[in-house]
Amino acid sequence: MSRLALFLLAVSAFAAEAADAPAYRTVNEIIAASAAEDWRTPDPENTLYLELDRGRVVFELAPWLAPKHATNLRTLIRDGYFDGLAIVRSQDNYVVQWGDPDADDAAKARPFKNAKATLDAEFTVPWHDGMAFTRLPDDDGYAPVVGVSDGFWVGRNPKSNEVWLTHCYGSLGVARGNESDSGNGAQLYVVTGHAPRHLDRNIALIGRVLSGIELLSTLPRGAPPMGFYEKPEQRVPVRAMRVASDVPEAGRSALQVLRTDTATFAQIIEAKRNRRDPWTKLPAGHIELCNVPLPVRATPATAPKP
Amino acid sequence: MSRLALFLLAVSAFAAEAADAPAYRTVNEIIAASAAEDWRTPDPENTLYLELDRGRVVFELAPWLAPKHATNLRTLIRDGYFDGLAIVRSQDNYVVQWGDPDADDAAKARPFKNAKATLDAEFTVPWHDGMAFTRLPDDDGYAPVVGVSDGFWVGRNPKSNEVWLTHCYGSLGVARGNESDSGNGAQLYVVTGHAPRHLDRNIALIGRVLSGIELLSTLPRGAPPMGFYEKPEQRVPVRAMRVASDVPEAGRSALQVLRTDTATFAQIIEAKRNRRDPWTKLPAGHIELCNVPLPVRATPATAPKP
Repeated sequence: MSRLALFLLAVSAFAAEAADAPAYRTVNEIIAASAAEDWRTPDPENTLYLELDRGRVVFELAPWLAPKHATNLRTLIRDGYFDGLAIVRSQDNYVVQWGDPDADDAAKARPFKNAKATLDAEFTVPWHDGMAFTRLPDDDGYAPVVGVSDGFWVGRNPKSNEVWLTHCYGSLGVARGNESDSGNGAQLYVVTGHAPRHLDRNIALIGRVLSGIELLSTLPRGAPPMGFYEKPEQRVPVRAMRVASDVPEAGRSALQVLRTDTATFAQIIEAKRNRRDPWTKLPAGHIELCNVPLPVRATPATAPKP
Repeated sequence: MSRLALFLLAVSAFAAEAADAPAYRTVNEIIAASAAEDWRTPDPENTLYLELDRGRVVFELAPWLAPKHATNLRTLIRDGYFDGLAIVRSQDNYVVQWGDPDADDAAKARPFKNAKATLDAEFTVPWHDGMAFTRLPDDDGYAPVVGVSDGFWVGRNPKSNEVWLTHCYGSLGVARGNESDSGNGAQLYVVTGHAPRHLDRNIALIGRVLSGIELLSTLPRGAPPMGFYEKPEQRVPVRAMRVASDVPEAGRSALQVLRTDTATFAQIIEAKRNRRDPWTKLPAGHIELCNVPLPVRATPATAPKP
């Protein structure tokens, strides 16, 4: 075993065989063996692009889990609200945030045009049986029940009939002030550190990063304690935000997301929950929600067009 | 409430008063009100420096939780083993790793001199009653009991009488190959993403970052899937590693760590477990181990010298 290759056999071709156990496959091996129908192409109407000088960050919205916020964010984007604004904050082990640096200055703040300035809170939404939900096998301290809803980490409370997106690495949220209705999508954040799950049910999440998170997570950190850039020249320009359906097809990012109602996904959860590769000495027997992988891949050249 | 200040009242001066509850104080307010004796100065023999062109990363070792690895790492450092080597890996939402890029090439690999080439595994160590331990009030899926031992996140199994450092953001570990004794400290890693707790008890952790983690967490990511830099020029030179006690006092970083056997620390856990600031609508009533803050501060000018 190479010293450099060390402790994550992500590319291992190993498959253990034993008389009393099926062959173990790593997460990457399960993905490599997946079928075309295990993957879906996100709806371009739910796919957002954040265009930076350093590249594109791609998001998928989960409108069934924050419908008003998803609608208002599309409106802001289509009004050109974000174009020319900036990333204003990068706090280590926490979040990156972007929006209007002059939002607090009434004379300079960019107007909202067709978008609403306030929105009813959508920290949770009512559960209904038509919603996709793949329950995790393990308990969670921050929610009565946790799992994945069609590609998004969620918590659920069966008693109160609520469901909500959870704060995991790469989650996309709508910043707000102290009032519950004070977020409208004009200031957005992405989690770039250990999951701050205590924020769950306190703020509206609306989706997650599908690709390009390293363009955000490697940004220089701003000043402690909150990571706001103190000097205007530290801010990172936002060239534009776009809804993918407004971008000519040739300019779209061709990505697919693993379906999370599949046997393949269940196998991935179990492969990570109990690693049985040659490196692992003690399988965890547990998986915490934000350690559940939600695989994304470049659309294969042979895949049918949506 | 400012739109920019948004969702973390880290600098709030707010203190809620109610007839039936004591005034709520934020974590930062509790820290600001702490006494000098709530803080300790890490032993310079347990303090390590990683010197990069971009600055210094400071670590504290927890030798009671990995004694052989701590001893061997000091020997490697004092042999000058790391000086002129490189950061070879940065994997998004996972780890940064450094050591000898030529470790796998017998003809080029740097020799270990006085350090051992292999070490017995120290994935856990036997618990004894002299060990510091502040138990968390909440359950954890990856360990029977979790808490903090004198400034380090740990798991415990009272039945098997074991204790171990856990993988949280900033944890420092010793990479290994497939054999349990194949790590000797010559390849080190720091967690720079969501806690990969499934690695607990599978690899020796030896300490954590006290300051400068942003110098590691913002490094460009290497090639997927494992984040190794493919081209030598992508690697980040390691100028040197030093044990602080070998550095003249004027050149040391003056840092203090909050004592975790104090009432102040207990208050911090509860303040984060149940936020009752004006922003928070639903206190979590739970704190997950890797969300427990372990405060570090610059040594105040008036503090007594150790």
